[in-house]
Amino acid sequence: MIILNGGSSSGKTGIVRCLQDVLPEPWLAFGVDSFVDALPAKLQASDAGLDIAADGTVNVGAEFRALEAAWTEGIVAMARAGARIVVDDVFLGGAASQRRWQEALGQVGEVGVLWVGVRCDSAVAAGRETARGDRIRGMAAQQADAVHEGVVYDLEVDTTNTESLVCAHTIAAKVR
Amino acid sequence: MIILNGGSSSGKTGIVRCLQDVLPEPWLAFGVDSFVDALPAKLQASDAGLDIAADGTVNVGAEFRALEAAWTEGIVAMARAGARIVVDDVFLGGAASQRRWQEALGQVGEVGVLWVGVRCDSAVAAGRETARGDRIRGMAAQQADAVHEGVVYDLEVDTTNTESLVCAHTIAAKVR
Amino acid sequence: MIILNGGSSSGKTGIVRCLQDVLPEPWLAFGVDSFVDALPAKLQASDAGLDIAADGTVNVGAEFRALEAAWTEGIVAMARAGARIVVDDVFLGGAASQRRWQEALGQVGEVGVLWVGVRCDSAVAAGRETARGDRIRGMAAQQADAVHEGVVYDLEVDTTNTESLVCAHTIAAKVR
Amino acid sequence: MIILNGGSSSGKTGIVRCLQDVLPEPWLAFGVDSFVDALPAKLQASDAGLDIAADGTVNVGAEFRALEAAWTEGIVAMARAGARIVVDDVFLGGAASQRRWQEALGQVGEVGVLWVGVRCDSAVAAGRETARGDRIRGMAAQQADAVHEGVVYDLEVDTTNTESLVCAHTIAAKVR
Repeated sequence: MIILNGGSSSGKTGIVRCLQDVLPEPWLAFGVDSFVDALPAKLQASDAGLDIAADGTVNVGAEFRALEAAWTEGIVAMARAGARIVVDDVFLGGAASQRRWQEALGQVGEVGVLWVGVRCDSAVAAGRETARGDRIRGMAAQQADAVHEGVVYDLEVDTTNTESLVCAHTIAAKVR
Repeated sequence: MIILNGGSSSGKTGIVRCLQDVLPEPWLAFGVDSFVDALPAKLQASDAGLDIAADGTVNVGAEFRALEAAWTEGIVAMARAGARIVVDDVFLGGAASQRRWQEALGQVGEVGVLWVGVRCDSAVAAGRETARGDRIRGMAAQQADAVHEGVVYDLEVDTTNTESLVCAHTIAAKVR
Repeated sequence: MIILNGGSSSGKTGIVRCLQDVLPEPWLAFGVDSFVDALPAKLQASDAGLDIAADGTVNVGAEFRALEAAWTEGIVAMARAGARIVVDDVFLGGAASQRRWQEALGQVGEVGVLWVGVRCDSAVAAGRETARGDRIRGMAAQQADAVHEGVVYDLEVDTTNTESLVCAHTIAAKVR
Repeated sequence: MIILNGGSSSGKTGIVRCLQDVLPEPWLAFGVDSFVDALPAKLQASDAGLDIAADGTVNVGAEFRALEAAWTEGIVAMARAGARIVVDDVFLGGAASQRRWQEALGQVGEVGVLWVGVRCDSAVAAGRETARGDRIRGMAAQQADAVHEGVVYDLEVDTTNTESLVCAHTIAAKVR
């Protein structure tokens, strides 16, 4: 299992697609975006679910957290059942978010994990947020550093000046 | 857990979205589309993975099947961890596909399942496939009846003349 | 040129895709959705541009109107240059919106137009809005009747109980 | 009017979105992607329309060309009607493609145009094509240099080592 953590617009998804291309075995990709897509629409703009303010501040409520915990266990179960899994997540809680994954991994057994930090300069990430055009502005800048606080990695990549494909090759070299 | 089975363009996704709106508790939605999105791009047009011929015939290879089995176990694990889950699937193997889910459900314990067949007249589904514009043509007609062969349901709905929201209310009444 | 008018979630886009499939000659499709996609993101939630309230009420501002007028002239110019064009629009202003198209058509000359009203029962359209999951709720119900006020058609179709493809065949029969 | 020309995955769309954000007045954005979306599905994989081979080679047929000519005239007509327009195109024919725009511009009068070349190192563009995951592979490498052959620009930007937002500021400075 590979778990990538990085702020919004730091380039996680591009790296994941390149990893899926570069790695010789097939890897399944899941992440915070596919989890949010699985939520009821009515939870996607609510206090109990996911709320993204006009300035990009993200708040998640109790129902989001409960479903996310079950989802995390399920993703780990897929890995335990033999699938190679790459996850891209946004550790809004920093070290606490990492601990959530570690606990799920501990519950179900010996799944090896490569922890990867995806960094990107805050201003550059904010510019890419503008270029994407599909995100509420402000998330990139707010999350750029905060999501890494207290998180421990096996490997860090920085997309500020390095292409997704190059980052993917660096990560893939560690996987083998 | 609710498992909907129906051919391509039979209206499963619309029913799922309505179910997520109608059911008072939050339900996570997964399905064959989100599974395929999780695959490496290089498996999405390959013998080992997923191959959709120009006439809409779908073939899945060994790597697809192996990853799908792990995915299925993971989805069941999410349900076992307490999440309410609605799955929409296309039972290309009919009864054999249902058995695959049943075995995964058996492995991890007492998750209650409501099996729902989503039927749609073949010609109507083919017309909706044209109206969607994002599917290879022919899938709807080929799958309309085949996916139901030998499958046992708790409930069947038919979208030929019934709106998604009405079907969702029928299903939701069985859930409570 | 074919101009379809109907409320949100009345089924215009599905009819357009079917028309493009059914009509023997190639037709280009444009409409309010592609126009909105062409706007700057910053106009998509603003007083000067497009503002969709939480209850689905749509307000358009002066800059939206100015750009829309130029866009309308350009679409008509494409038709005048020989392209077959099908437009799907939402006449928020009813008869006044139709007049806007008529004036643009008048300016550039003899482009034949087939005016088509796309009706859908308000409650059914609202249900389909839920099933789509990608629209702010309330638009369908608010627009279902309002957009047809005072508008004169060559042909009306009703998607409440008629499939998109059948509606398309009805329209195509009038085109030939 | 601003016309950007560059190969697939050279970063045109990101620059366009940034331009729409950076420029103080509202600009409408159109391009080859929105044109292709307007085509009938049946022209999107055909000899008469658009055909993209498995190696990324793009061929366009007579019907595509005829509709594209009308579309070009319509886009110019929008500009002539007062809209600020930014177009991103792929000059598959190099200088001949530029001439096509120049002729359309000539027909309708004094619309000022800023011609912008968007360059990107071929290998880098190919890597970004992998990271996007939604394009047939090979287009980026094949088009990287070919689309610029014989084309004359007012300004060139290179996204190999420069962010979209920075390129947009460079272009915007020329617009004012």
